[in-house]
Amino acid sequence: MERTKFTLDEERIPRAFYNIAADLREAPPPPLHPGTGQPIGPADLAPLFPMELIKQVVSTEREIEIPDPVRRAYAMYRPSPLFRAHRLEQALDTPAHIYYKYEGVSAPGSHKPNTAIAQAFYAREEGVKRFATETGAGQWGSALAFAGALFGIEVKVYMVRASYDQKPYRRILMETYGAQVVASPSPDTHYGQQLLAQDTGHPGSLGVAISEAIEDTVTHPGTKYSLGSVFDFVLLHQTVIGQEAIEQMAMAGEEPDVIIGCVGGGSNFAGLAFPFIGRQLRGEASYRFIAVEPEAAPSLTKGRYEYDFGDTGQMAPLVKMHTLGHDFVPPPIHAGGLRYHGMAPLISKLVDDGLVEARAVHQTATFEAGVRFARAEGIVPAPESNHAIRAAIDEALAAKAAGQRRTILFNLSGHGHFDLAAYESYLAGSLEDFQYVPSKQSSDSKEMAEVAA
Amino acid sequence: MERTKFTLDEERIPRAFYNIAADLREAPPPPLHPGTGQPIGPADLAPLFPMELIKQVVSTEREIEIPDPVRRAYAMYRPSPLFRAHRLEQALDTPAHIYYKYEGVSAPGSHKPNTAIAQAFYAREEGVKRFATETGAGQWGSALAFAGALFGIEVKVYMVRASYDQKPYRRILMETYGAQVVASPSPDTHYGQQLLAQDTGHPGSLGVAISEAIEDTVTHPGTKYSLGSVFDFVLLHQTVIGQEAIEQMAMAGEEPDVIIGCVGGGSNFAGLAFPFIGRQLRGEASYRFIAVEPEAAPSLTKGRYEYDFGDTGQMAPLVKMHTLGHDFVPPPIHAGGLRYHGMAPLISKLVDDGLVEARAVHQTATFEAGVRFARAEGIVPAPESNHAIRAAIDEALAAKAAGQRRTILFNLSGHGHFDLAAYESYLAGSLEDFQYVPSKQSSDSKEMAEVAA
Repeated sequence: MERTKFTLDEERIPRAFYNIAADLREAPPPPLHPGTGQPIGPADLAPLFPMELIKQVVSTEREIEIPDPVRRAYAMYRPSPLFRAHRLEQALDTPAHIYYKYEGVSAPGSHKPNTAIAQAFYAREEGVKRFATETGAGQWGSALAFAGALFGIEVKVYMVRASYDQKPYRRILMETYGAQVVASPSPDTHYGQQLLAQDTGHPGSLGVAISEAIEDTVTHPGTKYSLGSVFDFVLLHQTVIGQEAIEQMAMAGEEPDVIIGCVGGGSNFAGLAFPFIGRQLRGEASYRFIAVEPEAAPSLTKGRYEYDFGDTGQMAPLVKMHTLGHDFVPPPIHAGGLRYHGMAPLISKLVDDGLVEARAVHQTATFEAGVRFARAEGIVPAPESNHAIRAAIDEALAAKAAGQRRTILFNLSGHGHFDLAAYESYLAGSLEDFQYVPSKQSSDSKEMAEVAA
Repeated sequence: MERTKFTLDEERIPRAFYNIAADLREAPPPPLHPGTGQPIGPADLAPLFPMELIKQVVSTEREIEIPDPVRRAYAMYRPSPLFRAHRLEQALDTPAHIYYKYEGVSAPGSHKPNTAIAQAFYAREEGVKRFATETGAGQWGSALAFAGALFGIEVKVYMVRASYDQKPYRRILMETYGAQVVASPSPDTHYGQQLLAQDTGHPGSLGVAISEAIEDTVTHPGTKYSLGSVFDFVLLHQTVIGQEAIEQMAMAGEEPDVIIGCVGGGSNFAGLAFPFIGRQLRGEASYRFIAVEPEAAPSLTKGRYEYDFGDTGQMAPLVKMHTLGHDFVPPPIHAGGLRYHGMAPLISKLVDDGLVEARAVHQTATFEAGVRFARAEGIVPAPESNHAIRAAIDEALAAKAAGQRRTILFNLSGHGHFDLAAYESYLAGSLEDFQYVPSKQSSDSKEMAEVAA
C-alpha cells in the first residue's frame, strides 16, 4: 500500500525553534519607534511583550530551545501529519507529486496555536495575568483563547466588527475557551470611542483592532499584548512546521522542488518555508519558494518595500516591509486572515532579495481550487489555505504541460469549518473578485516613511 | 516528558473488521420483514444494500478482511489518536487516568466515515451509481457525501427539515463534497408529499427521513440505501476504533477499567467497545462498559426490549431492540445524533444480557462537562460526545471520592464545530433539559411488535 500519511511520534516534536537570523547574510532593517522614528530597543517593547519574546527577536542563535511545557501542549496536536495528495494528483492527471503539511489538526483549527502556546507560556512564566489581542476572521483569536485556557491567562479579544457580526461561531468558540470578545471598534478604548463617535456603525479593520489591543495593553497593568503574525518571534515559533516537514519528506524519500504557502502577515508561509530556506542559505539544498497572496491585498506584488506602521492608529512600531499603506482597508474577501496591508519584515526582505517568489491570485480561483481539493482529499480548507492550493495545482498542471516530475509541498494552514458561508457563495456562483485599487494612503504612508527614515 | 498522545503508523490501520457475532454465546433475534413479519433473508435486503454488506451481516467469522482501497481511504485520518487527558485529570484533581480515542480527526469530523467509506467502496465494486440516505444533525450525511466524493458515487441526502433550517453549515459541507441535499419531508417522494400535504411546515424527523430515503432507493434503479448506525454491518465497520485503541492502551501500558461511549443508534459506542467486549467474552480480560444516552430519548434505560420498526413509515425491517416506539419524536436536544427512538439490536442484546450498563444524562450536564473538557483539553466536542465525557468525568470523580486509581477510556466521537450555537445557549444559561414523557406510541408499537412476533 503506497503511503498517504507521514506521521511522527510525539518524541519528534522539535526541541528548538529555528531562527533564520542565524543564516541570513544581512539582517532586515531595524524596527523604528512609532513616535520618534528611532530604532527601537528592548525597553520600548517591554510594556507590550514578555521579555523572553523580546530576547528572541534580537537573538542570532540558530536554535532557540522550546521549553518542555510548550512541547507538552504542542503534543495535543503536533507533530502534525504530512500527506501525499494521491487523489488530487490522480484528479489532475499530473506526473507531479503533491505533499501537504496539515495544520488544521490543532483544536482551534489552524497553525496559529504554535505561537499562541509559546506566547502564553512565556507570559505565564513572567507573571502576566491577561492578554489583549485583535482578531479578524477569528483564527488567531481562537488560538490565543485556547492557549490562554491552557496556561490560565485571561484573554480579551478585539474582533473586527464585520467578522464579529458575520462569524458568530468563531466568537462562540473563543467564549467556550473562556475568552472575552468585543466587537472592534469598541467602547472599551479611547481610540474605539473616537471612531464610534464618528460612525456608530464603523465596520472595523485589523489595523483598528490592533490599535485598540495595544491601547488596552498599555492602560491595564498585568496585561501584555499578543499578536499572531508579522513579528519575528511569531514566525520563529511557526518553524516547528517546517522542521517536522523536513523529517517527513525524508520519510517519503523525496525532496520538494517547490515550497508554497499563503501569505497575509506571513507566519504560516514562514513556518513551513524558513527551515528549508535555512538549508538553502547554508548551501545544503536548493528550492523554489512561492508566497501566495490575494489580488485584493497584494502587498508583495503591488506594494512598496518601505517603512510603514503595522496598525491604523500608528501605535505599533514602524517596520520596513512590503505595504499598501497602513490606512489601506482591503476589500471584504473571505480569506480574512490575508486582509492585511503589510507583510512580515523577514518575508519582505527574502522577497526583495529574490529568494522567495510572490504571486497574487483572485478569490474565485482559490475557491475553485479548494472545492477540487475537498472532493479529492476530503478536507475542506480555510479560504486562506485555498491560496496555497491554487498555486500548488497550478504548479502541478505546469509540470503536466512540461511532462515533468516535480515535487510540490504546500502548507494547508487550516480547515474551513467556520467559513462555509464562503463556500456556499462560491457554489452558488455569487463570489466576487476584487481588483486592487491603490488608494491615496499609500503615498501618505510613503511620506510618513520618509519622515521616519 | 509524560506522554499525551499515542499515535500509530498508517501500517497499523486494522486489516480486518472485528465481528462480535463470532464471540456472542447467543445471536440476537433475527430481523423481520416489515410487511410479512417473517424472518428476513438476503433476497429481502438485496434491493436496499450491496450484497457484500448483506453477507457481512450473516457472517460468523471473527475477522472480516478490510479491502486495501478502504484502508487507503482510512489513511486520510486513521489510525486516529488516543490521548491521555492529563489536563482534565489535573482539573478534576482525580487519581483516575482518563484516556480518549479521538474520532473528530476525520475530515467530516466524526467516526461516521469509518462505515461510509466501507459502504461506498462495496457499492462501487457492485456497480452502484447513487446512494440515498437520511441525516439528522448532518454528521452522517457529511460522512457519506465525503465517501461518495472519494469513490465517485452520487449522494442524495434527506435532511430532517428542522436541522436543514438550523444548521446551514452542515448542508453546505455536504454540498461542497458534491452531494444533493433536500429538506425532509420533501416533495421528492410520495411519503414526503403525503406529509407535506397534511402540514406544509412539517419539521421532519429521523424516522421520516429514513422512510424517504428507502422509498427513493426502491424507486431509482442503480441506487442503494446507506445508513450510518443501528445495523450490524455499520457497527462492524466501526470496530476499527476499538482495535486501534487496544494497541494504543498497550503503548500506554494500561488496561482500561471502564469503557464509555454515547449511544443514539449505537455505532460509536460499539466501535470502541466491541473489540474489548470480545476479549471479555473470550475470557481474556474483564471491563465495565457504560453506554450513555440522553434523558430526552432514553431507549436503553426507559424503553422496552421488543420488536419495532426502525423508521416512522414502517418500511425498514422490524428488529428486536430497546425502543420508545417508532412514532416517538425525541425533544429537540442539541445532540441530534442521539435523537432516535430505538437502539442497535446488538447493543440492546448486550444490555439485556447485563454486559453493558446503560446510563441517561440531561443535556445541561453534558454541556457543563463539554466546556470543562474544552478548557482543559482544547477540543470542543460534539454535543453527542459530551454525553460520554459527562460519564467519564463522573467516573473520575467517583474514583476520587473512593480514593481509587481507575483507568477510564471513552470515545470522543467528534468535534462540535458545527454545533457552536448549542454552546452559546449553554454559556448564556438558556439551555433546556427535557424529561422523557412516554407517548401512546410506545404501546402501539408493542401491539405491532406482538403482531409481528
